[in-house]
Amino acid sequence: MTEKSPIPVVVNGALGQMGREVIKAVSQAEDMMLVGAVDLNPEYLGQDIGEIIGIGALEVPVLNDLQSVLVLATQEKVQGVMVDFTHPDSVYENTRSAIAYGVRPVIGTTGLSDKQLKDLEEFAEKASTGTLIIPNFSIGIVLLQQAAITASKYFDHVEIIELHHDRKADAPSGTAIKTAQMLGEMGKPFNPPKVASKETMAGARGATAEQNIPIHSIRLPGLIAHQEVLFGSPGELYTLRHDTSDRSCYMPGVLLSIRKVTELRSLVYGLEKII
Amino acid sequence: MTEKSPIPVVVNGALGQMGREVIKAVSQAEDMMLVGAVDLNPEYLGQDIGEIIGIGALEVPVLNDLQSVLVLATQEKVQGVMVDFTHPDSVYENTRSAIAYGVRPVIGTTGLSDKQLKDLEEFAEKASTGTLIIPNFSIGIVLLQQAAITASKYFDHVEIIELHHDRKADAPSGTAIKTAQMLGEMGKPFNPPKVASKETMAGARGATAEQNIPIHSIRLPGLIAHQEVLFGSPGELYTLRHDTSDRSCYMPGVLLSIRKVTELRSLVYGLEKII
Amino acid sequence: MTEKSPIPVVVNGALGQMGREVIKAVSQAEDMMLVGAVDLNPEYLGQDIGEIIGIGALEVPVLNDLQSVLVLATQEKVQGVMVDFTHPDSVYENTRSAIAYGVRPVIGTTGLSDKQLKDLEEFAEKASTGTLIIPNFSIGIVLLQQAAITASKYFDHVEIIELHHDRKADAPSGTAIKTAQMLGEMGKPFNPPKVASKETMAGARGATAEQNIPIHSIRLPGLIAHQEVLFGSPGELYTLRHDTSDRSCYMPGVLLSIRKVTELRSLVYGLEKII
Amino acid sequence: MTEKSPIPVVVNGALGQMGREVIKAVSQAEDMMLVGAVDLNPEYLGQDIGEIIGIGALEVPVLNDLQSVLVLATQEKVQGVMVDFTHPDSVYENTRSAIAYGVRPVIGTTGLSDKQLKDLEEFAEKASTGTLIIPNFSIGIVLLQQAAITASKYFDHVEIIELHHDRKADAPSGTAIKTAQMLGEMGKPFNPPKVASKETMAGARGATAEQNIPIHSIRLPGLIAHQEVLFGSPGELYTLRHDTSDRSCYMPGVLLSIRKVTELRSLVYGLEKII
Repeated sequence: MTEKSPIPVVVNGALGQMGREVIKAVSQAEDMMLVGAVDLNPEYLGQDIGEIIGIGALEVPVLNDLQSVLVLATQEKVQGVMVDFTHPDSVYENTRSAIAYGVRPVIGTTGLSDKQLKDLEEFAEKASTGTLIIPNFSIGIVLLQQAAITASKYFDHVEIIELHHDRKADAPSGTAIKTAQMLGEMGKPFNPPKVASKETMAGARGATAEQNIPIHSIRLPGLIAHQEVLFGSPGELYTLRHDTSDRSCYMPGVLLSIRKVTELRSLVYGLEKII
Repeated sequence: MTEKSPIPVVVNGALGQMGREVIKAVSQAEDMMLVGAVDLNPEYLGQDIGEIIGIGALEVPVLNDLQSVLVLATQEKVQGVMVDFTHPDSVYENTRSAIAYGVRPVIGTTGLSDKQLKDLEEFAEKASTGTLIIPNFSIGIVLLQQAAITASKYFDHVEIIELHHDRKADAPSGTAIKTAQMLGEMGKPFNPPKVASKETMAGARGATAEQNIPIHSIRLPGLIAHQEVLFGSPGELYTLRHDTSDRSCYMPGVLLSIRKVTELRSLVYGLEKII
Repeated sequence: MTEKSPIPVVVNGALGQMGREVIKAVSQAEDMMLVGAVDLNPEYLGQDIGEIIGIGALEVPVLNDLQSVLVLATQEKVQGVMVDFTHPDSVYENTRSAIAYGVRPVIGTTGLSDKQLKDLEEFAEKASTGTLIIPNFSIGIVLLQQAAITASKYFDHVEIIELHHDRKADAPSGTAIKTAQMLGEMGKPFNPPKVASKETMAGARGATAEQNIPIHSIRLPGLIAHQEVLFGSPGELYTLRHDTSDRSCYMPGVLLSIRKVTELRSLVYGLEKII
Repeated sequence: MTEKSPIPVVVNGALGQMGREVIKAVSQAEDMMLVGAVDLNPEYLGQDIGEIIGIGALEVPVLNDLQSVLVLATQEKVQGVMVDFTHPDSVYENTRSAIAYGVRPVIGTTGLSDKQLKDLEEFAEKASTGTLIIPNFSIGIVLLQQAAITASKYFDHVEIIELHHDRKADAPSGTAIKTAQMLGEMGKPFNPPKVASKETMAGARGATAEQNIPIHSIRLPGLIAHQEVLFGSPGELYTLRHDTSDRSCYMPGVLLSIRKVTELRSLVYGLEKII
């Protein structure tokens, strides 16, 4: 890898929690070179992003003008990549700008509308510019979901348990709902009943997602973010579990996306497409 | 133990699933001696109970007259014990008969009414005859429940997950409800909310038992009988789990009860009282 | 399925523990028809196999001459299948006989030598007869192993924990060793150390399989057969777990094999090849 | 509680990782009042400890002279408490100083020699000053260990699995060794073998602690600090598990110790003694 020229990377939203992790990960990747850090927060304008986040000087100042920083990503031997963790309001424009400058976007910001997605797809296609829109950078969750889809061909019974810290307000979690949807799309009704079941206390059997898949949500302090998919058939149980303990777990997915986007010529949606 | 005279034991309901396990367990215990086997099923009348259940001859025929068999348990050096796994309709009379004959009852049959229990309590008291009524012989579950009660003094957050095979019709399980009741009796409201929580799909957060304890019921083929109690506080999780895979798991509790009942002079309810 | 003619099935080793399960499973499958049951145990010769195993008469007597029973499997509209759970000493001859009669073998008996396997491969090829050699019929384990292989491309750290009842003498389990081998064949050294690790008590870090994969073996009464593969990377854990509680769990794999072997024209080894 | 006068608390080692957590916890406890913060780190001398750790001004400056701060803890209506998370080299002197000033020590710093402990015990006894020496403030671990000791009376089979991040060099963990010791002190040999077991790969069955208790150590990135104690008997499994995800988990133990030490008149060692 070190023989090839490193990939120039711009991080947009560099001072956010995800942005800081990306700065760290990119600056430690041998095949990448951090060339720019953008953030609208005026507090640190012009200061070195490495020093701000406590990993030592990187010689990259925080700037607030995306376009001038994108230019920096076009002056190396190989084409650059922009990683964007900003805001639903600005992500569409950011992505267009990057494509316009020939810088490949890797977008972690959520909130793009279907219409915006379609626009960006056409725009990337015309420009032949690889573009990745990734709502969830966890490789582990994608692996779990794909393993679950495979398992669902052989098991007729499945339930989902998700466990999160007690500051999470909504239940079930978005990831659990998404996992159930992916299984539901197989078009197979799960959990054919053997007996007439009866809830003597309402809610005991959980929420019912598509194709009759129950989801159970646990909320306790001490938990972080966990998901289990349990498949059962007579005499056997097959369980897939994912535990997240730290935002750093998304970085392998971010780095993989940066590498993969340089091989693409159009827009691709979802980490599962490049794994 | 082998120096002391063995405890003579009569098993009532010897041909049932639990009865057969008890026959096996008692006949292998060095400090016990199987002296009688009673069952109303006429099919095997007079045949050797050991041969019927496939563990070799025990020289104990299956009889259908409880009283004459109770007499056998009174003719040894030490007083006998009757283990009863029969039917809600007969358990009260069986217990009275045993006490009347001076044979100590260990009752695993459920279904005694409060009134019947009170009667038996008085009857055992007057006769100074140790009597054990044990709705659940699992030592593991009692240990779990006692450990949970201790933990509940130090943790404010708790949830219960119970997992059973898909032939179980009711949810939550009786054991999970009982566990929640035991925690609820502490008089402490659990799970004070940190955020206004919201079920986007009804049932996701489970059933709510006393003192705000959620219970979640999983039903899948491949599961047998499992219960988890999760305690959480900031930065830490403490989990108690019990897995049952076979009826044999109740035998240590049955043998313990047989030994303990010989030391009692009155009626005691629940395995937790003698552990 | 019911419109098509059912697949005629012969079970060799019908009175063994696996054979009995297969009889049950095949006789309940709508697209199969049990046409023969073979066993060398003379005790039940000529008796109805369904009655012997307690599921009601199937009109199929237990016979001891494989060849005459194979003939029965060739007299239906569609070609028959022989399921073999017999003995290492006879499995090679049984398989040759089946192929010779044009009956497709599904072989669960282990112990074939490499030379025997090669012979059978050639023999099946020449006869254009689908033949399946399946050392482990658990679909769940195959799914786990395949999901683990996929995960191992994205995770550099992995450990295996296997848990079994305490009557299992050898450690690690064959399945755990096989799982480690499959991961090892990826050619990637796992678990690059971050610190100089030190066992203050020998064995704490488990056995070391190929490519530096640790295997830990737990042996306790109350356990049955369980395997966990844990993948870790910074901030995230991905766990695959399989629990076996009953021999019935192998039946979906047996039925799948019966269906698939009718589509094959040569020998195939391993359930993973037909999933 | 709010009617009683709050307990005045001094934190020694206020700028360390544990010290900062204690400052936070004490300043939020209604029945306590932070009156002093001591640290030898000169960088923040004289600055407000609340501002330094980012929770807003507490009107408590960081000072470097323990004795003058101890005086502050003696000027309230109720006697004060000193929490010490400093260094093995200074902890003995710190504890003596506190006792000399009539301030009750709660000591989390490890490294006191047996001789020093004995000295402090006598010193506290003479001064009738409650003193707590607590090597591990996790209430969850103490609960787990106590529940394990209770369970070990009823189960003959037990194994310990501990799982930690891969920066942990030593295996097994100190907590696992301590747990095994506590079980071993029961004087009962665990895990009587049913079969002659055989390790086909050395280490598979883990390390062997006292009384034949196996310990298995897993090391993976993504893990934090976890311990499982598995008890097995025929047909049943009872599992105790503790997961630590954050240093905040020790704070309930610290606050409990502060409250309990005010009721003591001598030295007490170990959180298990006051639970």
